[in-house]
Amino acid sequence: MSNWKHKHIIDLSSFSAEDYKEVLQLANRFKKLPQSGARKLPALQGRLIATLFFEPSTRTRSSFELAAKRLSADVQSFSPSSSSLSKGETPLDTVMTYVAMGAEVLVIRHSSAGVPAQLAKYLDQKNKKVSILNGGDGLHSHPSQALLDLFTLTNYFGNGQSTPESLFGKTITIVGDILHSRVARSNLWSLTACGANVILCGPQSLLPEDFTRFADKPPSGQKEDPIKRRGEITICRSLMKALKNTDALIALRLQKERMSENLISNLNLYHHEYGITHQKLEWCTKKIPILHPGPVNRGIEMSSELLEDNAICLVNEQVSNGIPIRMALLYLLAATNIN
Amino acid sequence: MSNWKHKHIIDLSSFSAEDYKEVLQLANRFKKLPQSGARKLPALQGRLIATLFFEPSTRTRSSFELAAKRLSADVQSFSPSSSSLSKGETPLDTVMTYVAMGAEVLVIRHSSAGVPAQLAKYLDQKNKKVSILNGGDGLHSHPSQALLDLFTLTNYFGNGQSTPESLFGKTITIVGDILHSRVARSNLWSLTACGANVILCGPQSLLPEDFTRFADKPPSGQKEDPIKRRGEITICRSLMKALKNTDALIALRLQKERMSENLISNLNLYHHEYGITHQKLEWCTKKIPILHPGPVNRGIEMSSELLEDNAICLVNEQVSNGIPIRMALLYLLAATNIN
Amino acid sequence: MSNWKHKHIIDLSSFSAEDYKEVLQLANRFKKLPQSGARKLPALQGRLIATLFFEPSTRTRSSFELAAKRLSADVQSFSPSSSSLSKGETPLDTVMTYVAMGAEVLVIRHSSAGVPAQLAKYLDQKNKKVSILNGGDGLHSHPSQALLDLFTLTNYFGNGQSTPESLFGKTITIVGDILHSRVARSNLWSLTACGANVILCGPQSLLPEDFTRFADKPPSGQKEDPIKRRGEITICRSLMKALKNTDALIALRLQKERMSENLISNLNLYHHEYGITHQKLEWCTKKIPILHPGPVNRGIEMSSELLEDNAICLVNEQVSNGIPIRMALLYLLAATNIN
Repeated sequence: MSNWKHKHIIDLSSFSAEDYKEVLQLANRFKKLPQSGARKLPALQGRLIATLFFEPSTRTRSSFELAAKRLSADVQSFSPSSSSLSKGETPLDTVMTYVAMGAEVLVIRHSSAGVPAQLAKYLDQKNKKVSILNGGDGLHSHPSQALLDLFTLTNYFGNGQSTPESLFGKTITIVGDILHSRVARSNLWSLTACGANVILCGPQSLLPEDFTRFADKPPSGQKEDPIKRRGEITICRSLMKALKNTDALIALRLQKERMSENLISNLNLYHHEYGITHQKLEWCTKKIPILHPGPVNRGIEMSSELLEDNAICLVNEQVSNGIPIRMALLYLLAATNIN
Repeated sequence: MSNWKHKHIIDLSSFSAEDYKEVLQLANRFKKLPQSGARKLPALQGRLIATLFFEPSTRTRSSFELAAKRLSADVQSFSPSSSSLSKGETPLDTVMTYVAMGAEVLVIRHSSAGVPAQLAKYLDQKNKKVSILNGGDGLHSHPSQALLDLFTLTNYFGNGQSTPESLFGKTITIVGDILHSRVARSNLWSLTACGANVILCGPQSLLPEDFTRFADKPPSGQKEDPIKRRGEITICRSLMKALKNTDALIALRLQKERMSENLISNLNLYHHEYGITHQKLEWCTKKIPILHPGPVNRGIEMSSELLEDNAICLVNEQVSNGIPIRMALLYLLAATNIN
Repeated sequence: MSNWKHKHIIDLSSFSAEDYKEVLQLANRFKKLPQSGARKLPALQGRLIATLFFEPSTRTRSSFELAAKRLSADVQSFSPSSSSLSKGETPLDTVMTYVAMGAEVLVIRHSSAGVPAQLAKYLDQKNKKVSILNGGDGLHSHPSQALLDLFTLTNYFGNGQSTPESLFGKTITIVGDILHSRVARSNLWSLTACGANVILCGPQSLLPEDFTRFADKPPSGQKEDPIKRRGEITICRSLMKALKNTDALIALRLQKERMSENLISNLNLYHHEYGITHQKLEWCTKKIPILHPGPVNRGIEMSSELLEDNAICLVNEQVSNGIPIRMALLYLLAATNIN
């Protein structure tokens, strides 16, 4: 029944319209499970999922682990602090260890872009029936985050019935440090794939002009773009103008290091120009939802008041939606490995 | 059937006689499970309990996690070392993340008194069906420890059938650093509620005079004391006198920092005056049990020989009793949230 | 049916021929479980296994935890970094805490030789029905590693049907830092017990002459050797000569500290003399398998190319075999405690 073809999920540039549809459909189903009384599915009973987070992250790791447990899988976690990295072990050695122990899906986060793809390539060369799920690599890609953002937006526009179509023709603004954001890069693939137009908003130092051409062609190594016609990407330096024309907004986390790197001069100034507040939202021509991958720097990317206004700010709903989205991804990968 | 009314368990000042009775009854039942061959109950199958320990503690966290597993719950752990605290995330953000992921009971430990209460208040304002179980906050409260102490004492005096009544009229001595002990503060509420009289014993610097009035009135914000008549609290500076009159003794852990803070002059001197040994127990007029919340500093709060004399020292029984007590608390809170 | 007599597994000097046979038979059975569709056995349902790793190790701990989960046990982990060691807690206190919480098997790793044996003795004196499984102690012993090495070798020589007999008369070379290796010490007991002859190969500083007499008599405190006739242990300083006469080779991990300790002069020189490469394997008179307890220092103990040549290098198979071997050990210990 399933048309799923990806052995690994490394980034979203290769996702077809059907892929998005299948992930959202499954996530819709999994999201409704707790209400129906079925808190757990036996789908991955006794199967091993390993979360290998070479770059630490409690939130994302917890989300994957809970998703795995909801599917009745066994989970084994690895993080360098509690590990043998000090013994000079490479990520490849760690991966092969967990594969040898029987892991069928490896969720991998690494601070260097490309590591999950290299590992996937290696496993394929060795004919291993093991899937890599990219949990975030360098500035490259964070597919599960972009998919839960997509799920949250399509739920919002589809009034709780998430389909890719509900985003068609919408305008989504992403504001902040686009340059250093793997989340933004993954969002660009998924949002434009569903026919949304994206406005990128931020200062020159954090958002170079050439981002408008980001999704013009598939990344090197990929033959063609599986999406016939993508939405447009434009840049708008003024938050006021962007807000006037947008249907939703994704604010990105600002690493405080950007200041010491002289990319921004001052956090207060950043907040003044690009921070979201109730006041600035009055510039919008309609009520718009605010998303953020979390954790939010209160008073920088958005005001504390806005963060806690659940009628507008969907941060908590994004976290909730992370579970069914990650269940869907684990389910699709594990099912692929069986067949 | 249950009369349980507490959505959260923050401290024991609001516990009624019925509350203690219900907790002990449940703990009695859960304690006998392994003997009956039923090692696990399906009660919380598929439900999520999160342990958020902003102040580290392996013992208490393990105890809560095992209790949760015995009830077939899923457990997700958070501790700052493996986390995004470095990203400037507040405890409130962490809590909301785990709530969004579906946690129904949050066990929270924090070095600042009042954090669990503030978080509970916030969740109530947001109408969240989520319970906070205080796993220890600053010098304020450690309800599950006091309840397992109570369970251990009532088991002892009730000959294995734990009821609050078995403590009525007994004298319990707490010896050591009362001033800096959240365990002692919680013990004071629970022991006096069951009609036990408490002798506090320790040097002036670690036990100010006004502790005799500790349970005279409920803490600010709480209308009335649900207990009509509490046992008495007295201070006795001499361990010898206290031992002559007591039915049981709880020794508290002495943080070695107290010496650098000039609150005690010398650990050997402390042991000489307040450390418990077989020799000093000869001052007692009857055989008394010794409790300690652990871990014990051998040779300071008590001698190594005494710690390993299981006929007198109930430290290991306290640890064992922690499991059924915490099962009871998790069960009551999770059941409350369902109904 | 089972003749298993060991309450604890501390080292292999006390293992009889029947013990090895029983462990290998069980491991054979457990190894085939995933193929038969039964990924989990209910054998230890609801029972608690604690992994107490006072010396950190992700690989070995993960392997024990997965083995425990495959038997449906509950697992609780302890490691000093996340713990109360800073509170001055001794390993004995930690052990007694987990015993009080209901753990029935404790897997213990400690940097000091003898700690697991001391703890086992203490538990026996206290009449505790709890088993210690040594997860590696100082330079003394690492029984589960030696047993998975044995399982891997007997599988190889028995063509997938592992029995101790298939090692009889074979020659196994162990190369490297024998002096500092608990793995080598355990291998010496298990390999000679099955009638294999062992060649030890390495420089004088890492391999003293008296190792040839290592298994001549049982360690102090043990009455007699349960093995009537053991294989021989010889020393051969030349890797070339050793390779000419060997049926299999175990390379040991070289701690880089050995250089600063002046035990070896140079890592490149070490690799030149004792590192295994495809080129050196041409000295062999037959095709031989290469084992290594992992993690491998690529380019020191063996070349990267050899490590990834799965036709010769069995490192990944050793990791895989760790699961059924540890399942067998946990199963035998837990079963012993029940009866």
